Amino acid sequence: MGQNTRFDSVIVRLGGEIGIKSEWTRREYEKLLLKNIRNTLNHFGVAYHKIIHKRGRIYVETSNAKQVANTLTRVFGISSVSPAKHTSSDMKTIVQTTLSLARATLKKRSSFAVRCHRVGQHTYSSMGVCKTVGEQILTRFKDKDLRVDLTNPEATINVEVRDDEAYVFSEALQGGGGFPVGSQGKVICLLSGGIDSPVACWLAMKRGCTIVPVYFDNSPLTDDVSKAKALDIARKLFEWSIGYPRRVYIVPHGKNLQTFVKDAPRKLTCLLCKRMMYRIAERIAQEEKAEGIVTGEAIGEQASQTITNLKVLNEATRSYPVHRPLLGFDKNETEAVGRKIGTFEISTRKAKGCTAAPDKPATKAKLEDVKKAEANLNIEKMVQESINEAQTMTV
Amino acid sequence: MGQNTRFDSVIVRLGGEIGIKSEWTRREYEKLLLKNIRNTLNHFGVAYHKIIHKRGRIYVETSNAKQVANTLTRVFGISSVSPAKHTSSDMKTIVQTTLSLARATLKKRSSFAVRCHRVGQHTYSSMGVCKTVGEQILTRFKDKDLRVDLTNPEATINVEVRDDEAYVFSEALQGGGGFPVGSQGKVICLLSGGIDSPVACWLAMKRGCTIVPVYFDNSPLTDDVSKAKALDIARKLFEWSIGYPRRVYIVPHGKNLQTFVKDAPRKLTCLLCKRMMYRIAERIAQEEKAEGIVTGEAIGEQASQTITNLKVLNEATRSYPVHRPLLGFDKNETEAVGRKIGTFEISTRKAKGCTAAPDKPATKAKLEDVKKAEANLNIEKMVQESINEAQTMTV
Repeated sequence: MGQNTRFDSVIVRLGGEIGIKSEWTRREYEKLLLKNIRNTLNHFGVAYHKIIHKRGRIYVETSNAKQVANTLTRVFGISSVSPAKHTSSDMKTIVQTTLSLARATLKKRSSFAVRCHRVGQHTYSSMGVCKTVGEQILTRFKDKDLRVDLTNPEATINVEVRDDEAYVFSEALQGGGGFPVGSQGKVICLLSGGIDSPVACWLAMKRGCTIVPVYFDNSPLTDDVSKAKALDIARKLFEWSIGYPRRVYIVPHGKNLQTFVKDAPRKLTCLLCKRMMYRIAERIAQEEKAEGIVTGEAIGEQASQTITNLKVLNEATRSYPVHRPLLGFDKNETEAVGRKIGTFEISTRKAKGCTAAPDKPATKAKLEDVKKAEANLNIEKMVQESINEAQTMTV
Repeated sequence: MGQNTRFDSVIVRLGGEIGIKSEWTRREYEKLLLKNIRNTLNHFGVAYHKIIHKRGRIYVETSNAKQVANTLTRVFGISSVSPAKHTSSDMKTIVQTTLSLARATLKKRSSFAVRCHRVGQHTYSSMGVCKTVGEQILTRFKDKDLRVDLTNPEATINVEVRDDEAYVFSEALQGGGGFPVGSQGKVICLLSGGIDSPVACWLAMKRGCTIVPVYFDNSPLTDDVSKAKALDIARKLFEWSIGYPRRVYIVPHGKNLQTFVKDAPRKLTCLLCKRMMYRIAERIAQEEKAEGIVTGEAIGEQASQTITNLKVLNEATRSYPVHRPLLGFDKNETEAVGRKIGTFEISTRKAKGCTAAPDKPATKAKLEDVKKAEANLNIEKMVQESINEAQTMTV
């Protein structure tokens, strides 16, 4: 757009679920969101002048409106953002600003609509704004051969009036949704280099949790690429929780897995492996004062994830809930989220898969068989040694 | 389309996750899917002649192709369906059939593409089919002023060739996805008259589970409309699992709730209420030989659903996993699914909400406080009485 109407602001709309919380909770969430916004902009080195907080809205004053808007799509608790031009609520100014935006935005022979959202007392109605602005655009840009289409326009010119101020904008980018990170407690996330677990982590963050990823290192039964992938994924995920710890646990798990392969029925390998992961995660949860364990399991996705086997897995941890945000996701739906958040391309880098998976895994294991297999092993010692040898790393 | 090319078949594409199962599992799933398809068509009184099963595909011969296709969008394990015209794989016949479909389908001045999927040995290539058919369409319908657009066409003419047969079609309707109902075990679902729990139930069914909905009747602390809503929702959900039991448990819960309101700290009412529901669901799971409990909880959606409180809730049931498919869903995302599956409009019918919810519920309850409150009540007796007075109803 022209020099005079270069965007100077970003409108930040809060997730709808924040608005319906109790007054006290809403204020806490908004405070948290403001902090997360500031931290995120600072972290990515995106300059801004000022953040203004009004009920249900946040406005960022900046000369980098597009960059600020793009950056904030990665902050949870935000439903959408719009680069905007800030003006006074005076009708003449509004018309001038919209004309400038229309010149830059509306293509020849295209359809458009004008929408107005208004809070406060004004000499005009919202309808009046739409009508006046629409007419002015049609008159002024006769050569563009534009037409008004209120139901399915190719472009929209929006005016948001608040008391004596107004914002003019044409697009809204979708935000992360959910709740500000930090509004919920901490969860331990089992993070592999695969496709599913990063998406499960992301969904927990989206709903406000801070995460502590735990990577189980199966070497020598897998290669180092898997670990590198998991760490890169963790880095990618932490971009959504700027300002919070970026610590990852790396637990040596190959020895455990070798024991299961050697000293327990082969068809139970994956279940024994996962139960061990749950147990170790539980210890880490205690240390970290976390409130749950998050995994990427989806009903029936793998043999170890049948509804029968999930019950067998659950039995291994009694003091922490196992949260599985992907339970009802189809693989293609999980992949779609992974693509959107940038973890899919890391997850699908070539790596040697786990070589310990049996040809014929049990799909309906009996808990008593699993417990019998575990009774022959020194499970508690294995857990303790894994914990002792676990490392943490800030990524 | 013309009389000669009226659709006579429906192509049924299986969910992608079925195809990657082991040979044995895949066959079992396909057998189940065939049974579910038959049951669903029979239940809704949709006539068909024959169901033909080939690797990775099912074809339904029918003179009601559109109705069959629409009905099958409600069968899980199906990724998509297409009303189609069945012909021989002879190129001349293919061209004739596509021309007839093009006449009926392609609008004046629109863009189209021809796509071909081919299995078997033929004298022509897939590319060759696309080229020949495309050219013939352009020549034959000059008056329509059509143009070819391979990347973003307004309509598509598809040819699927399998050995000496071919199917011609223009549209694919999205199926339910997931796995055939019955491929996973049974789960107990806490079903209220609200928006969330039906969607959680549906997601469990989508991944192959059969469901046993349990409605907790809070009267006199709520009205009878809530119960009627829950039953209508159960009926709607069972349309997705035709051929399986349609039984709902109705558990009197009002007395329990009154006790919590009267004899326990008010801020804990919802947590005590839910823990009681979990315990009762657990008993029903034992009786029903179910493998888990499904709830509509989403992290942070309500005070009782903070990540801290979910841990407190979980502690009430130790022998069954609590599966929460909506953990990572925003409210608007849950509503969108509810609208799609037809439960949202029932859920939003006016009813008196629960009047027992406190003004200031605990958002971070302490497990010891909850256990102390429960120690003052005869929880086991309350559970037993609720179970004794529970009724089942086939809807």
